[in-house]
Amino acid sequence: MTESIDNHPDIEISRRRLLGTVGAAGAAGLALGGVGGALTHSALSDSPAGGAPGAAGALTSLGATEVAFQGDHQAGIVTPLQAKGHVLAFDLAPGAGRTEAAALMRRWSETARRLMAGETAPNADSGIALDAGPSSLTVTFGFGHSFFERTGLAARRPTALDPLPNFSADRLDPQRSNGDLWVQIGANDGLVAFHALRALHKDAGEAARVRWQMNGFNRSPGATVSPMTARNLMGQVDGTGNPKPSEPDFDKRIFVPAGGPGPAEHSWMAGGSYAVVRRIRMLLDDWDKQPTAKQEQVIGRTKANGAPLTGGGETTEMDLNKFGGDGKPVIPSNAHARISAPEQNGGAAMLRRPFSFHDGIAADGTPDAGLLFICWQADPLRGFVPVQRKLDRGDALSEFIRHESSGLYAVPPGPRAGEYVGQRLLEG
Amino acid sequence: MTESIDNHPDIEISRRRLLGTVGAAGAAGLALGGVGGALTHSALSDSPAGGAPGAAGALTSLGATEVAFQGDHQAGIVTPLQAKGHVLAFDLAPGAGRTEAAALMRRWSETARRLMAGETAPNADSGIALDAGPSSLTVTFGFGHSFFERTGLAARRPTALDPLPNFSADRLDPQRSNGDLWVQIGANDGLVAFHALRALHKDAGEAARVRWQMNGFNRSPGATVSPMTARNLMGQVDGTGNPKPSEPDFDKRIFVPAGGPGPAEHSWMAGGSYAVVRRIRMLLDDWDKQPTAKQEQVIGRTKANGAPLTGGGETTEMDLNKFGGDGKPVIPSNAHARISAPEQNGGAAMLRRPFSFHDGIAADGTPDAGLLFICWQADPLRGFVPVQRKLDRGDALSEFIRHESSGLYAVPPGPRAGEYVGQRLLEG
Repeated sequence: MTESIDNHPDIEISRRRLLGTVGAAGAAGLALGGVGGALTHSALSDSPAGGAPGAAGALTSLGATEVAFQGDHQAGIVTPLQAKGHVLAFDLAPGAGRTEAAALMRRWSETARRLMAGETAPNADSGIALDAGPSSLTVTFGFGHSFFERTGLAARRPTALDPLPNFSADRLDPQRSNGDLWVQIGANDGLVAFHALRALHKDAGEAARVRWQMNGFNRSPGATVSPMTARNLMGQVDGTGNPKPSEPDFDKRIFVPAGGPGPAEHSWMAGGSYAVVRRIRMLLDDWDKQPTAKQEQVIGRTKANGAPLTGGGETTEMDLNKFGGDGKPVIPSNAHARISAPEQNGGAAMLRRPFSFHDGIAADGTPDAGLLFICWQADPLRGFVPVQRKLDRGDALSEFIRHESSGLYAVPPGPRAGEYVGQRLLEG
Repeated sequence: MTESIDNHPDIEISRRRLLGTVGAAGAAGLALGGVGGALTHSALSDSPAGGAPGAAGALTSLGATEVAFQGDHQAGIVTPLQAKGHVLAFDLAPGAGRTEAAALMRRWSETARRLMAGETAPNADSGIALDAGPSSLTVTFGFGHSFFERTGLAARRPTALDPLPNFSADRLDPQRSNGDLWVQIGANDGLVAFHALRALHKDAGEAARVRWQMNGFNRSPGATVSPMTARNLMGQVDGTGNPKPSEPDFDKRIFVPAGGPGPAEHSWMAGGSYAVVRRIRMLLDDWDKQPTAKQEQVIGRTKANGAPLTGGGETTEMDLNKFGGDGKPVIPSNAHARISAPEQNGGAAMLRRPFSFHDGIAADGTPDAGLLFICWQADPLRGFVPVQRKLDRGDALSEFIRHESSGLYAVPPGPRAGEYVGQRLLEG
């Protein structure tokens, strides 16, 4: 955790690859050597995680870009947004406990490591990703509250995993919430992402069963002229206020510190993070009927470029104390951007790294679409919870969205060489 | 139809764009002028439509690439496969007839023309595609069998639209089959595609209601080192035998000829094509349990590169008369590739241009995934039908797939300047 990113072993690997001494080769012998020079480490990108993908520089190509599996932190947290995602939870099978969970995490880690390097899966590869490079594939694993009883590890469950409070506007489906194990897959190619999903599913074998599964997407790299903060399916710039990896307190806010507060039994989480995952349905038929000016009042930012209604550009600070000629605040008191602003929440900060989702048409005839909200923080009680409490009470956006599922997961640190994800918990 | 592609007016537009005299600009004033030189006409690409996207040459960029709305044929037929797709059908609302249908096709055409040029929608743009270029967006419109009674145009309904025969293995859901109007949206960016879907939905207003809607995907441009024929979710190279636009009889096979057979009342379809659209579920849990050697026997081609089991590379002709030492044909008598080969079907040819789909987990716990099969031909009775009849009887692949929906649509020719799609039918 205290290592600087410059001294991180993963970067060495990437440097080797950049020098062309390691070629990523598909198992079918389709060498990517011709573009070996383009291999890079996405997480090195200086762009904010909330920014559009494709920012990794002119030397990269979509397929060849590789994200390191090993590291202080798991991949898929500060990795730039990917075009495709699968988010799913598994429950351990009846009778499966700590031994089976450890074996599963070992299998999953080996599969993730190989697929992220553009290799085939160890367990009878399906061939779906043949021809393609790793395409910024990331696989991220987390443990839900129930995992710890199931594995006899309740004493090592961090208090940060205590269930989230109920929010009055929640309409949560328990079937699509929580779960023992959480997996996030992201890639810039849909078949590469699906290939990983199938391989991890096969690895689960008899040890775990899928509890719920969701698909998401973001902009494709190169769709915008220059990297920009993402837009959501409401057409709104989304992610402007995200903490940036270049900020001095970024690590402290997002990752669990080594030797931090809490008993030593929780030290396995040092370098880890907590993910809050919510399926937020957008009531798009209602939203799209609102004039742009109304939408901008609800959000507190302009639609065109996400600038605060008090002026400037996207990254200009909001002037929360500016009043219009009518005596009302220019950014309304119930505007989403005002209520969720860190300065309104004791500096609470989380790294939002979502996917949009679109599952066709719901039973009521409206689009079953919205945001797979995923946010990262060192402590959910200082990140997600205080902000959501305020939003739950007074957010003008509430009438246009519906929280349909919720999960909170402890995402262990990245593995060291030879280690599997979660080993420090399961064998510590 | 008889115009050569070199003399086509669209190409002039593209040349102008290539010379940089026309810049595609987002409505928010986000000029794409800096990459104006990269604008190109995807349909000009020499790569087979069944090939991977991204083949349009070094000058292109994903976002800036634009496909022409006007032309002899609608876009989305010979356009290289796109990374994201929406396929849906509408039924005209009760009481809506020819007048309302004509007005809808006029609105839809104007929206499609603008969005494909990277402009905003005419009808209160939702903003979802702001920042992005057109990203090879195509919108393709077709008419189903029922459209003609609804609009009082039964006398102008081509016989080629007669319902497809029943196939014994079909398990069709009528709720997800057929429909008055068919729309295919494709783009290399998921938000650009969704934006178009929402805009067309809004245009429908009270005139038409969504009957069914499906989402699909293909490889992202750049995910493979060089353009390759696509793979499907079985991991199989899919599309090798597709007719190529460079072949002399391509147009004759895919597009309805001017002055062809049939009464003059059907001349509005000259330059059009017929699309067969089938949701083909893949029983992936069963498929993935088969050893690769068994999968290759089912298909008749190798998994690694799609070469026939009789040797060579992907594009080597199958040797259907080659026998192994055991006296059996090397490509089994029930292999999918043998049964569907054009030489086994009187030269029947169709242009397959599918999307993969993945809608999560079905009620039975298996993946709800497979192929949105879309094939194009001048005459379904000489393209899809004879091949599917043979596959229905003896295809070894049958036990691993399930045809769940079916539609057949008359896709009118591309519009001329100032014309809307289908105008020659609705006002002819």
